[in-house]
Amino acid sequence: MIQRLAIIGVGLIGGSLARALRSAGAVGEIVGCGRSAENLKLAFDLDVIDHCTRDPAIAVEDADMVFISVPLGAMRGVFERICGKLAEGAVVTDGGSVKGSVVADAAVAFGAVPEWLVPGHPIAGTEHSGVGASFPALYHNRRVILTPLPQTDPKALGRVREMWQATGAQVTEMDPAHHDEVLAATSHLPHMLAFGLVDLLSRQRDNDAIFRYAAGGFRDFTRIASSNPEMWRDICVANADALSDMLARFGDEMTGLADSIRRRDSDDLLDIFSRAKAARDAYVDGVQPETTPRPGR
Amino acid sequence: MIQRLAIIGVGLIGGSLARALRSAGAVGEIVGCGRSAENLKLAFDLDVIDHCTRDPAIAVEDADMVFISVPLGAMRGVFERICGKLAEGAVVTDGGSVKGSVVADAAVAFGAVPEWLVPGHPIAGTEHSGVGASFPALYHNRRVILTPLPQTDPKALGRVREMWQATGAQVTEMDPAHHDEVLAATSHLPHMLAFGLVDLLSRQRDNDAIFRYAAGGFRDFTRIASSNPEMWRDICVANADALSDMLARFGDEMTGLADSIRRRDSDDLLDIFSRAKAARDAYVDGVQPETTPRPGR
Repeated sequence: MIQRLAIIGVGLIGGSLARALRSAGAVGEIVGCGRSAENLKLAFDLDVIDHCTRDPAIAVEDADMVFISVPLGAMRGVFERICGKLAEGAVVTDGGSVKGSVVADAAVAFGAVPEWLVPGHPIAGTEHSGVGASFPALYHNRRVILTPLPQTDPKALGRVREMWQATGAQVTEMDPAHHDEVLAATSHLPHMLAFGLVDLLSRQRDNDAIFRYAAGGFRDFTRIASSNPEMWRDICVANADALSDMLARFGDEMTGLADSIRRRDSDDLLDIFSRAKAARDAYVDGVQPETTPRPGR
Repeated sequence: MIQRLAIIGVGLIGGSLARALRSAGAVGEIVGCGRSAENLKLAFDLDVIDHCTRDPAIAVEDADMVFISVPLGAMRGVFERICGKLAEGAVVTDGGSVKGSVVADAAVAFGAVPEWLVPGHPIAGTEHSGVGASFPALYHNRRVILTPLPQTDPKALGRVREMWQATGAQVTEMDPAHHDEVLAATSHLPHMLAFGLVDLLSRQRDNDAIFRYAAGGFRDFTRIASSNPEMWRDICVANADALSDMLARFGDEMTGLADSIRRRDSDDLLDIFSRAKAARDAYVDGVQPETTPRPGR
């Protein structure tokens, strides 16, 4: 049970955590903190938070749990602002999509990565942002990856694990570098492809016809290109090395595919498409059938 | 009103056309034709067709409308088989995803593109195939592109237009080459990206972890990689020129994006993502809000 939770950044991620913990009865009071007065007011009106402030140093006073879900580019500033302001025994965790950069920011802001900091990443979200898009079931059956370091206090780790379990999430652990590689492959690269495709098509001469004749598959495929641009700018900068590596590998894959198409190499094309279909059917549909509702018919 | 409809290839596309026309009361008898006895039997058991045969030449006897929805690689063989077997006044149309190759196949099989052939393409589908996946509402509010040639009989064009309108589709016209360019951009290229991404990830060392931590966005993004591999092999070969051109443009786009990421060029990244989000929100969500149900929460 969390007595007083401070949420720095009450958007889709932070707001959904608040709603989930409230509906599980796993939290006492919730203090919300953010830069946008309008969003904070909405969070307050929606009963997502009990108190609000725009200063992280005030938000963390007396909090026994602090959750930071600000864009990665703002993480270090928040760490610096709360340094020395935390209550005795408080645990801090975050929802950043890249863990290496969060650990590096913490090392700079606090002098060393503190034993009470448990870096984490809930693998959940939609293409919408802001507290208005938050909902209590966002983390239900979703995975949350915690990336503790050797110095992390096991009790702090346990408390963050319990918090996420109360939301219905499945909690696992990984080292920060491995997390960043896995996410580069499954999330950051696909977002680059979707953003890149939509940007390319919007600049075509007949972009109007192009978008008019796009079907449902295109809508699904490009949904992630509606995600928050600032957030994705920060993710790219924070995970530039792992993402560049994945982009290069993908470039090689597409060069090979383009060659097969130009050569009209039917056998090679059938091999690639069959392998991909088999992998997608087995791994994606097979592994997490319950997590994402399928579009109806 | 169609008296006797022959459907060559009773899969998702052909089966859904049959079901839609039946439920609209716009067709008398339906003859189904296909290579798979099992699929034909299922179509018969599901009441999608009234008669079945595995020979296209027999299927088209006495039919006043013929719809061909076989993989593009099988199109020319079907044309050759039905040549000289059609009833007086019969109209033939198809559902092929590439129109230039269908027109070229018809020219070879019939000596010239006949005035009673109306090449067409319903912009609809799911990642599933076979008559078991067909459903009557597949074309409701979807676009169907007809690509008549100068010699096409306006009466034949009118009858095909009426047939599709009876399914609830919005029918438009385009010349075959423009159709193939638009579809290369909105359908064929996205499929290549999804197939290529899943194939790449399935060959990574830790592909198990990669797929396990993939979230809902990845599921949506890669749904089209579960599409029929043989169909997509044929599409790639049939539209190789337009698709190669789009792949090259996309490659340039991604090279630029990769450079911006490596340079950690925040301004450039924000520009790209903002443009893409604006285009996606305006064109895709704005233009066809009714056509694809959104995943629920």
